[in-house]
Amino acid sequence: MSRIITLTTDFGTKDWFVGSMKGVILGIQPEVLVVDITHDVSSGDIRGGAFALAASYSFFARGTIHLAVVDPGVGSDRAAIAVQTADYLFIGPDNGVLSWALRQESIKSIRKLENEKLFLRSISHTFHGRDIFAPVAAHLSKGVAIEKLGPAQPQLVTFPWPKPQRTRREVAGEVLYIDQFGNAITNIRSEFLDGFDRESCRVMLRRKAIARLKRYYEEVAPGEAACVASSSGFLEIAVNGGSAARRFKLKVGDAVEVRRTAHQRSSS
Amino acid sequence: MSRIITLTTDFGTKDWFVGSMKGVILGIQPEVLVVDITHDVSSGDIRGGAFALAASYSFFARGTIHLAVVDPGVGSDRAAIAVQTADYLFIGPDNGVLSWALRQESIKSIRKLENEKLFLRSISHTFHGRDIFAPVAAHLSKGVAIEKLGPAQPQLVTFPWPKPQRTRREVAGEVLYIDQFGNAITNIRSEFLDGFDRESCRVMLRRKAIARLKRYYEEVAPGEAACVASSSGFLEIAVNGGSAARRFKLKVGDAVEVRRTAHQRSSS
Amino acid sequence: MSRIITLTTDFGTKDWFVGSMKGVILGIQPEVLVVDITHDVSSGDIRGGAFALAASYSFFARGTIHLAVVDPGVGSDRAAIAVQTADYLFIGPDNGVLSWALRQESIKSIRKLENEKLFLRSISHTFHGRDIFAPVAAHLSKGVAIEKLGPAQPQLVTFPWPKPQRTRREVAGEVLYIDQFGNAITNIRSEFLDGFDRESCRVMLRRKAIARLKRYYEEVAPGEAACVASSSGFLEIAVNGGSAARRFKLKVGDAVEVRRTAHQRSSS
Repeated sequence: MSRIITLTTDFGTKDWFVGSMKGVILGIQPEVLVVDITHDVSSGDIRGGAFALAASYSFFARGTIHLAVVDPGVGSDRAAIAVQTADYLFIGPDNGVLSWALRQESIKSIRKLENEKLFLRSISHTFHGRDIFAPVAAHLSKGVAIEKLGPAQPQLVTFPWPKPQRTRREVAGEVLYIDQFGNAITNIRSEFLDGFDRESCRVMLRRKAIARLKRYYEEVAPGEAACVASSSGFLEIAVNGGSAARRFKLKVGDAVEVRRTAHQRSSS
Repeated sequence: MSRIITLTTDFGTKDWFVGSMKGVILGIQPEVLVVDITHDVSSGDIRGGAFALAASYSFFARGTIHLAVVDPGVGSDRAAIAVQTADYLFIGPDNGVLSWALRQESIKSIRKLENEKLFLRSISHTFHGRDIFAPVAAHLSKGVAIEKLGPAQPQLVTFPWPKPQRTRREVAGEVLYIDQFGNAITNIRSEFLDGFDRESCRVMLRRKAIARLKRYYEEVAPGEAACVASSSGFLEIAVNGGSAARRFKLKVGDAVEVRRTAHQRSSS
Repeated sequence: MSRIITLTTDFGTKDWFVGSMKGVILGIQPEVLVVDITHDVSSGDIRGGAFALAASYSFFARGTIHLAVVDPGVGSDRAAIAVQTADYLFIGPDNGVLSWALRQESIKSIRKLENEKLFLRSISHTFHGRDIFAPVAAHLSKGVAIEKLGPAQPQLVTFPWPKPQRTRREVAGEVLYIDQFGNAITNIRSEFLDGFDRESCRVMLRRKAIARLKRYYEEVAPGEAACVASSSGFLEIAVNGGSAARRFKLKVGDAVEVRRTAHQRSSS
């Protein structure tokens, strides 16, 4: 039995969609706690949902069921899956939304959701979050075995994970996610700079140095840019009290480099 | 005893209003689960709240208490009521916000909320959600009988439900609700077209055909319009990956027709 | 043991930040209820967070733990504290965010959060909400004594509370908070006008009378301004069905007066 089901969706909170899902889950399993990770993934942004889940799932207790529904292909023939790992259960459409969290986990089993006895009786073509995913998650939290969901599936759809490149003089990466404060989170883990003298590094965007490596936002003056180790473990470009995304016109996929400068010889 | 109280309001989530209501509820009945349907009904939009509640309440278990507070007349002499139906309890101002959910339910009893012993001790003129509705809902969830709330009331304020009109060649309806994705939900239930050849139907807006009937969004190319059976059971006009409301300048109340075309003779 | 932990933050709900905090809390103490007051305090607006907490905390049962994280100085050397009062426990950065709630409470003990055994094992420089405050709140809710958190601290950082000034003819105050509807909440408690003839009072902004004192919004016509006793106990300037902040270009700190007029002699 799992005590917690988390929800990561792009359903927003203006309408009744998330409330309906919770009604369905609690109707099947009144003892479970439903915890929102976010419902404000940009509409249809599978990568954004994948990153939000990857950045948060491991802060929940073992046994937690993570349900992620960013599903622009709802109603088409994309599969719906559940994935058992050593520590968690993940459920969602098989479109990559689970794949960045699963990179970090040891997968035990992947099952297609095909057992209609575990669905709502009437299935819409546009809201599988409520009609399929919510009831299946609730049944799993009650202890229904994953084998009951449907046939095994050997693999899942994955997004390629962009690996940063390191040379002697620089690390080249890209922007993975822009959070609501306009902080641009890159794919460069902080440890990836080990061996670089952080003091002498500059963060480069379109060939211009835009920030230095700092430990926290307030190390720079209000309105100034800094590059800090974000709470997700990756370097992020931030502006103290402002939006780095707006200041530097950053968007997901933009190339970013961390470059060693010949600090000792330079006067600045 | 009821285990769940749902909340549907226009209080938003930027301020502390909803949090205060939950504090009041849990102070009276710590064992209840409070589930948000939405707090982002447009400010004072009673019809919008009525639709959100009607589209979601039935996905909750029997015995659930549904509290809806969209209440532009707070403090004036509009009544506050509780309505017992065969399966649920509804609470809210008597201004129509409950009426679209109640159309579908069998009403057993309507009571005015007048027993001040069940209110907070000090009642503001502007926030009955916290001071009257929340504590009454909590007391009901503890098992207080509805008769204890106040005098019976024979009827409630209802919004007329706009019925679609069907002729041999078309069904004429209107836009009931626009969701946050810009999907325009109409008052035409999908079954209402039974007997029409769906392939040959066109959805008409201001005398122009804007979409065909489809099963799901991705049946049309990104940026194209489709009319699908929404998860609430009604036809909705959608744009794959976009906003139908923006594209077609749709608003609540706009007339929409589904028309049979002489498909066989037409070349397009 | 406390059953409820409330959260007041500026983390927003678009990303996974609040979800992660809940994961951490429930991992340590699965029996606690986490209740959101708001996560939409304007980014870094410590005063706004202080007001939201002060306006809502007392609606929760005794023993509730109130966690407020509006923390632009995260990672710098500002202290993190827990404050035991007669009825509640408050936790947050020592930057004033707790101080307006604490004005109304009897403080028993203030402790710095320095016991790293109660933190997450790995502490980021940018997200103490998840890494320090959430686990400490969870441990407190399990019954860990506040003395275990760290050394006693005699005082906390407080925001000065702006007191309104009263003369024979007027009360002079200021705007404390603007809510999401554009209502401007002042620092003038309704009782502060006792002895004034409310009928003859005018609310003045930049030397112009903009509203009269009313009991509720609908006492004035749609689009008209009124000054009512808000649910937080303070006078608020509102526009029926509109935004007073937009209409009168109001912002936090603006001076507002309530003035007695020589009503009897005036014809209007």
